[in-house]
Amino acid sequence: MTRSFSLAVIPGDGIGPEVVSEALRVLDETARIHGFSFTQTPYELGAERYLETGEVLTDETLAEIRGHDVILLGAIGGRPGDPRIPAGLLERNLLLRLRFELDHYVNLRPTKTYPGVATPLRDPGEVDFVVVREGTEGPYTGNGGRLRAGTRHEVATEVSLNTAYGVERVVRDAFRRAQSRRKKLTLVHKTNVLVHAGGLWSRVVDEVAPEFPDVTVDYLHVDAATIFMTTDPARFDVIVTDNLFGDIITDLAGAISGGIGLAASGNVNPDGTAPSMFEPVHGSAPDIAGQGKADPTAAIGSVALMLDHLGLPEAAAAIDAAIMADITERTGPRTTKEVGEAIAARVAGDVAGA
Amino acid sequence: MTRSFSLAVIPGDGIGPEVVSEALRVLDETARIHGFSFTQTPYELGAERYLETGEVLTDETLAEIRGHDVILLGAIGGRPGDPRIPAGLLERNLLLRLRFELDHYVNLRPTKTYPGVATPLRDPGEVDFVVVREGTEGPYTGNGGRLRAGTRHEVATEVSLNTAYGVERVVRDAFRRAQSRRKKLTLVHKTNVLVHAGGLWSRVVDEVAPEFPDVTVDYLHVDAATIFMTTDPARFDVIVTDNLFGDIITDLAGAISGGIGLAASGNVNPDGTAPSMFEPVHGSAPDIAGQGKADPTAAIGSVALMLDHLGLPEAAAAIDAAIMADITERTGPRTTKEVGEAIAARVAGDVAGA
Ligand SMILES: CC(C)[C@H](C(=O)O)[C@@H](O)C(=O)O
Ligand SMILES: CC(C)[C@H](C(=O)O)[C@@H](O)C(=O)O
Repeated sequence: MTRSFSLAVIPGDGIGPEVVSEALRVLDETARIHGFSFTQTPYELGAERYLETGEVLTDETLAEIRGHDVILLGAIGGRPGDPRIPAGLLERNLLLRLRFELDHYVNLRPTKTYPGVATPLRDPGEVDFVVVREGTEGPYTGNGGRLRAGTRHEVATEVSLNTAYGVERVVRDAFRRAQSRRKKLTLVHKTNVLVHAGGLWSRVVDEVAPEFPDVTVDYLHVDAATIFMTTDPARFDVIVTDNLFGDIITDLAGAISGGIGLAASGNVNPDGTAPSMFEPVHGSAPDIAGQGKADPTAAIGSVALMLDHLGLPEAAAAIDAAIMADITERTGPRTTKEVGEAIAARVAGDVAGA
Repeated sequence: MTRSFSLAVIPGDGIGPEVVSEALRVLDETARIHGFSFTQTPYELGAERYLETGEVLTDETLAEIRGHDVILLGAIGGRPGDPRIPAGLLERNLLLRLRFELDHYVNLRPTKTYPGVATPLRDPGEVDFVVVREGTEGPYTGNGGRLRAGTRHEVATEVSLNTAYGVERVVRDAFRRAQSRRKKLTLVHKTNVLVHAGGLWSRVVDEVAPEFPDVTVDYLHVDAATIFMTTDPARFDVIVTDNLFGDIITDLAGAISGGIGLAASGNVNPDGTAPSMFEPVHGSAPDIAGQGKADPTAAIGSVALMLDHLGLPEAAAAIDAAIMADITERTGPRTTKEVGEAIAARVAGDVAGA
């Protein structure tokens, strides 16, 4: 019996299409070797689409995308400061809309150091942690507004919304992941200042902890977490945190582990009520788009996360192993396509000396 | 004519008293050499005081403190997780209360690398920037609450409050500082998600910029800022940002520049309507309190910021030079007191070979 799934592909803007096409190359090869199949539907969404048509994401397109088993996304975003695109429009109405409407409450962001890959840290140690970032609440809900906008008397608010329901489900997911790893969970928040949201997060972690007696729990303020991220990142196993803190510390995590070009992510709906979405952490990088310079590794790693989510752990592991081998043996600069081909060849076992 | 000022001293908890007493040693010596004088009033506030008396900061004490020219603070905070101290109680009702009531809208946090000081970065370059962190608004206002607290239906909110008045004054201050430095200002925010607050911050920066035509302005999302902080911190000159983002990136800045033990800060009221307050960025570190292990350099650097604020730039520069010389020539570990004495001796010019 051949496993088969339907894939919605959103290449997006800038380097998005380039890295996605290498990710698909590796997916194709993996499907061939590991005996599964998939169908793909491309969706042209993003800055270009918006500039051409004024459309961001219609309800019809969203409904169509929802009909797939899983989504692969490249990157969304026009040129920084393009006056034709209001700040946050694409983020809110496309990327965040997908995350919110498809209930991607687990934003999964693993970080690893690779032997031989230079990092900005003198001595990162052996880093291998995963951030479980809440994906559907917190300061990302779009709540808030502007009073007397544009005047000297303007007041602008942002409301962070946090529910026991929302926090509990992501905390429980993080505990489960910790249990299947090194059994250490770190809550990152700012409970000494954000006492309301912080109180809720702390309480939920305390209440869920007894269900996972073999998992050690600790807590760090987000400011202190950034310190440890640079001085002792190897201390972390699973970090659970809110939407905004997770955004910040995962970019930092990408940086200290050797570059955001390697950082994969999954926007996961663990309950399966809607398709999960996998994407590199990096943005659309319009400054290097179309030059074949972008590193597709993060997009390819996102395919591995996707296969794992789909219940194809061996296929996922094959991609991860291929990435690890490729990264470790990297020498000079290669094009986007060369990296994709090299990793695909490794998945196929078709590598000189492999 | 001898300049004289009155100093309120809040040694606080943990290592606070130890580092403050070295800061006062250096201040004494600097006053002697540079011909100014000061009176000091100690205020026993913090976790210990709270545990003994149940008092955090009374209106009477606040009024007394307000009567001084300037405040020196060590660190506030009991043992992490002490069940007798509700989360955030001391932070909100003491430290943040002082910052808010005394209108410390400029939270000034300079970062420098020192020759010879190890940093976690392989190659930080020559780092010399200052973060102008807004100190009286944003997510720090305590706005928000908990509905159905403690139940499965709890909703907890945090409201970030931002006003044109509040943003404009701190942005203008940051432009002024940029003008007297390398003329580069970076706004750090998250305008693509926090569109309301982000819209206000961007607008104000755009509107104030023409008054400072020689200052180059750029913008970074807070997540991207953490990347540059590790890959190219030398690019920054003046960063202006909101209260929460400033909290996060200044701890990171402390870490990458060689340790939070060196990071000084000022909570400045530039209008002089109330005393400004100077404090090390580090916390009370109860785990090493009373052992003479704490590095007093950040507290001593905070005294330099204080003297500069008081219009004694030469005295401030003398302390900074003494710190620089001391740090550069550090060898083995020294006690808190030894570091204080060494820096005081340098200020006095009383150093073998100096
Ligand atoms: C583009 C932006 C809305 C997004 C976020 O803040 O979540 C990005 O930074 C990320 O981390 O995926
Ligand atoms: C102790 C805490 C309230 C404080 C803050 O968040 O401002 C501290 O982290 C700081 O940076 O001074």
